[in-house]
Amino acid sequence: MLWSNALIPTQKESPADAVAPSHVLLLRAGMIRQLGAGTYTYLPLGLRVLRKAERIIREEMDAAGALELLMPALHPIELWEESGRVATMGDVLIKFDLGGDRKVCLGPTHEEVITDLARSYITSYRQLPITAYQIQTKFRNEPRPRFGIVRTREFLMKDAYSFGADVEQLNASYDAMYEAYCRIFDRCGLPYVAVEAESGPIGGDASHEFMVPSPSGEDQLIRCSSCGYAANVEKAEVGTLAGPSPNSDGAPAPTEVQTPGQRTIEEVAAFLKVQPEETGKLLVYLADGKPVAVLLRGDHEANEGKVRRAFGAATLEPADAPTIQRATGSLIGFLGPIGLTIPLAVDQAVALMPRIVVGGNKEDIHLRDVVPGRDFPIDRVLDLRNAAAGDPCPRCGSALEVGNGIEIGHVFKLGTKYSDALGATFQDAEGKTRSLIMGCYGIGVNRIVASAVEAGHDANGIIWPLSIAPYEALIVPLQVDPDGEVMKLSQQIASALRFAGADVLIDDRDQRPGPKFKDADLIGIPLRVVVGERGLKEGKVEVKWRHDSEAFTVPAEDAPAAIVQRLVSARQELADRVERRAEERTARRGHAG
Amino acid sequence: MLWSNALIPTQKESPADAVAPSHVLLLRAGMIRQLGAGTYTYLPLGLRVLRKAERIIREEMDAAGALELLMPALHPIELWEESGRVATMGDVLIKFDLGGDRKVCLGPTHEEVITDLARSYITSYRQLPITAYQIQTKFRNEPRPRFGIVRTREFLMKDAYSFGADVEQLNASYDAMYEAYCRIFDRCGLPYVAVEAESGPIGGDASHEFMVPSPSGEDQLIRCSSCGYAANVEKAEVGTLAGPSPNSDGAPAPTEVQTPGQRTIEEVAAFLKVQPEETGKLLVYLADGKPVAVLLRGDHEANEGKVRRAFGAATLEPADAPTIQRATGSLIGFLGPIGLTIPLAVDQAVALMPRIVVGGNKEDIHLRDVVPGRDFPIDRVLDLRNAAAGDPCPRCGSALEVGNGIEIGHVFKLGTKYSDALGATFQDAEGKTRSLIMGCYGIGVNRIVASAVEAGHDANGIIWPLSIAPYEALIVPLQVDPDGEVMKLSQQIASALRFAGADVLIDDRDQRPGPKFKDADLIGIPLRVVVGERGLKEGKVEVKWRHDSEAFTVPAEDAPAAIVQRLVSARQELADRVERRAEERTARRGHAG
Repeated sequence: MLWSNALIPTQKESPADAVAPSHVLLLRAGMIRQLGAGTYTYLPLGLRVLRKAERIIREEMDAAGALELLMPALHPIELWEESGRVATMGDVLIKFDLGGDRKVCLGPTHEEVITDLARSYITSYRQLPITAYQIQTKFRNEPRPRFGIVRTREFLMKDAYSFGADVEQLNASYDAMYEAYCRIFDRCGLPYVAVEAESGPIGGDASHEFMVPSPSGEDQLIRCSSCGYAANVEKAEVGTLAGPSPNSDGAPAPTEVQTPGQRTIEEVAAFLKVQPEETGKLLVYLADGKPVAVLLRGDHEANEGKVRRAFGAATLEPADAPTIQRATGSLIGFLGPIGLTIPLAVDQAVALMPRIVVGGNKEDIHLRDVVPGRDFPIDRVLDLRNAAAGDPCPRCGSALEVGNGIEIGHVFKLGTKYSDALGATFQDAEGKTRSLIMGCYGIGVNRIVASAVEAGHDANGIIWPLSIAPYEALIVPLQVDPDGEVMKLSQQIASALRFAGADVLIDDRDQRPGPKFKDADLIGIPLRVVVGERGLKEGKVEVKWRHDSEAFTVPAEDAPAAIVQRLVSARQELADRVERRAEERTARRGHAG
Repeated sequence: MLWSNALIPTQKESPADAVAPSHVLLLRAGMIRQLGAGTYTYLPLGLRVLRKAERIIREEMDAAGALELLMPALHPIELWEESGRVATMGDVLIKFDLGGDRKVCLGPTHEEVITDLARSYITSYRQLPITAYQIQTKFRNEPRPRFGIVRTREFLMKDAYSFGADVEQLNASYDAMYEAYCRIFDRCGLPYVAVEAESGPIGGDASHEFMVPSPSGEDQLIRCSSCGYAANVEKAEVGTLAGPSPNSDGAPAPTEVQTPGQRTIEEVAAFLKVQPEETGKLLVYLADGKPVAVLLRGDHEANEGKVRRAFGAATLEPADAPTIQRATGSLIGFLGPIGLTIPLAVDQAVALMPRIVVGGNKEDIHLRDVVPGRDFPIDRVLDLRNAAAGDPCPRCGSALEVGNGIEIGHVFKLGTKYSDALGATFQDAEGKTRSLIMGCYGIGVNRIVASAVEAGHDANGIIWPLSIAPYEALIVPLQVDPDGEVMKLSQQIASALRFAGADVLIDDRDQRPGPKFKDADLIGIPLRVVVGERGLKEGKVEVKWRHDSEAFTVPAEDAPAAIVQRLVSARQELADRVERRAEERTARRGHAG
């Protein structure tokens, strides 16, 4: 492909409203163009990346035995009413009327549609297990589309759904998808981490998110660089906190202090001239509808999944002010652990505090010098909060790190949530009717593109992984006379590369080297070959990998073969890395098992 | 791929509400499944056909120099307001609100979006010509989705748009797309015809539709089997009608007859006991806002494009009752050509009628024995109506045939309609600002699938063209013991075929031959190979093309090579046919030029 025919509208200036590197660089490199809020056109270069990611996904899904199909984007609203998700999805679900009482929505995901399909085709355990997938456009009315193509209203998703007869089949399908995802992201050259994720009160018992660490990510990612533990913030456990057991001998008894109108931790801490980490925060929830209380250190955040499990509840929701007053006799802002009659769970960090400022359960009153365990009972020391930077790793005790990540994939054991709701059943070997056991598995294809840029760029532009670069090689002839030696050799090199299966872009623009090199760095093609008259006089052609700072030269007389050789080696290296990582995973599983 | 893993839910019974063969057979063959009104899921077999058609389209678009990009389905409504099409598209355009005053629509086509893109990137004639395309999902709120995947609310379309600096560039882009379309449909094995189509009052001066003749088509197709002339009903010309000039010598003068309440041609003809073809039909239009009249034979249909051109008008619309009464002094149902004061155009068929029954321009009165040319003037003998079966071909005079067709593609010279509306301009070589000259080119990808079935089926099922069949070969082992000779040879044949680049389905189901053969015929894989113990005893493997009635055998010992050879020959035949037809087109163009 010749640059002059390729529609690559590069821009020198950064767009005013773009902050994420992927957003800035994909716009500047002429790969995407915004159409509306959260909608982007993929220009030829950007689309090539998207299609390459799509092809890798398809190959690995097929290899894992998943069947490709294609479901519509327009869904009858009735299916979503059957599953109950018209209510739970809220405004994110785009609903409208096609006239004549035909209500439809635009699919933000396809559990309902595939379960409807399964209930009509799957009747017997003999048809199980089965996994189906599609690569299809989803629609979500995101209230705040952000970071270019990271969070949009319309996006390309690979969604897969597995159906099994029992938990063993679910686990096998889940593991196959997990492994396929690792291969996909390895092949795409992404520095991803697979993190344990909260699977929610309903559904199965396992879920993993695949995240690419990036400041532009909207999800928090907790990692241990010592042992490799990784989890999202909902799921991350906090290891046992070390520290001397607080000694309350000789500590003064609690004192009431007037804190008129001081309700938040920040207000109380500032008013009493203490740090937030010297205070306690009492929160009231409804666990399966019954009021319960949780005491955390003032600067910590409750983790509702952990709280729910602490009380053995199926559902948990924050209590509202009237409920709190009925349950505790006190007002929000002045709640404390002393004298409570509802069940109380105490976070382990609180148990290490020698004394603590808490609410006095009376309006405008807080208590100083409260000693946990002395002034209120601690039945169990529990992990009830979100992990924070510096917390001990639950596996090895090293300090956890906290960062942001872009979620590129999610695998999820659904269980029978949708098959129960829609009545998707099968007959087991004994002739008994049972609900299909489902898993679902998503990849945000556009996010592969975005996170590759987030993970691969420098001040000058994008650094694409070889496997998903729009072109593998860019040839830059410095003189573009079609009959000249420079263009002739450029074409020969391009031709040799194409014969080796590479896609090649030739920058045939009649411009000075400076702007051509700047554009080359910006669009980030992995292998850059510069052919120029001066070099040819010395019998040399310049070759540079975008990820290397230094160029090298190859003899002009065998440049085509030499350059093909470099490309083939680079591909082989990537392929070897993918297989090596797969072997490491197998070894780890063997070790664990 | 093994049948037992492939999700092919074939059905014995025809679905109750399906009439078109493509609808019935694609459902019965387990290739599609209806989700809602006008929305279909493509099951694995159906999706393979869709993807193969897509690949052929992409290859030919790329070869024609078109650039692939991908535009969103969600469009800001503002763009459609700029082009004025919110009003003209009416309810077919799906519009809704995303909250916060963000009005959007779902793109039924992308002229607005691509023109918006062009106005931001194209500034100079040096960037022209350029053609961009996408393969993307469109949405239209069709009031009556029909014939399965022929007319749906959500469909996959290849839409391309060309931008040129002048008419020569438009013509070159148009011709390149026309040629690419011929290659695409030839490669897909479709018996298409390219017909001249009406291009409408606004826009360019040429348009062709690509149609596959089929009773399930919704478009009428006029063809001459003698000379190959083909056009759609809007565009088809009627050749000069032959027949003796009517001789009115001695004909009686017109007589008034009472026709109380008889307004339609059918009512009047029945009441007066004449045939509709003995009557005349006077229609009143507004041509550029001025009333004009047209006289046709009672059984003929006016062609508004022809009428518009007859009056040299840019716009034409039927006049309403009050306008008609003001213009003619008469009432609808009793209009006639005698004494009219507005311009009158007379169709050539009327000029051949010796006498005619027409309205009397008075309520409840018609006239008998009116002689055209004697009782009212005929200034010009014109072609003003839709061609009908038996009309003379405009090129060779042979009788035209009328049938239905499925429109699978459309190429259209748009001119500056959208570039004017959206201000998409460029600087020409003289520095003058001018509007981009556009063409647009669409292919309904799903309709390729449907029309292939319409054109290729028999009582037993589908007969896929080799190039877009879900699999090229189906191997039917009659004994499915995995360790048996039959399965071993089946696998060897499959393996040899795969090595030759073929995709192969193996029917590994443990069923009797009858149902397996029935399913084979139903899903229509081109090459069927039957391996069975009885045959192997005789050293034979049976091979059958789906489109042939007779099977043949090959020696079992070299079955893999022999079968590969057959497949390779069949592919080559198809490729040769595509090239031969391309050469014929080139020859015809040379001849015409």
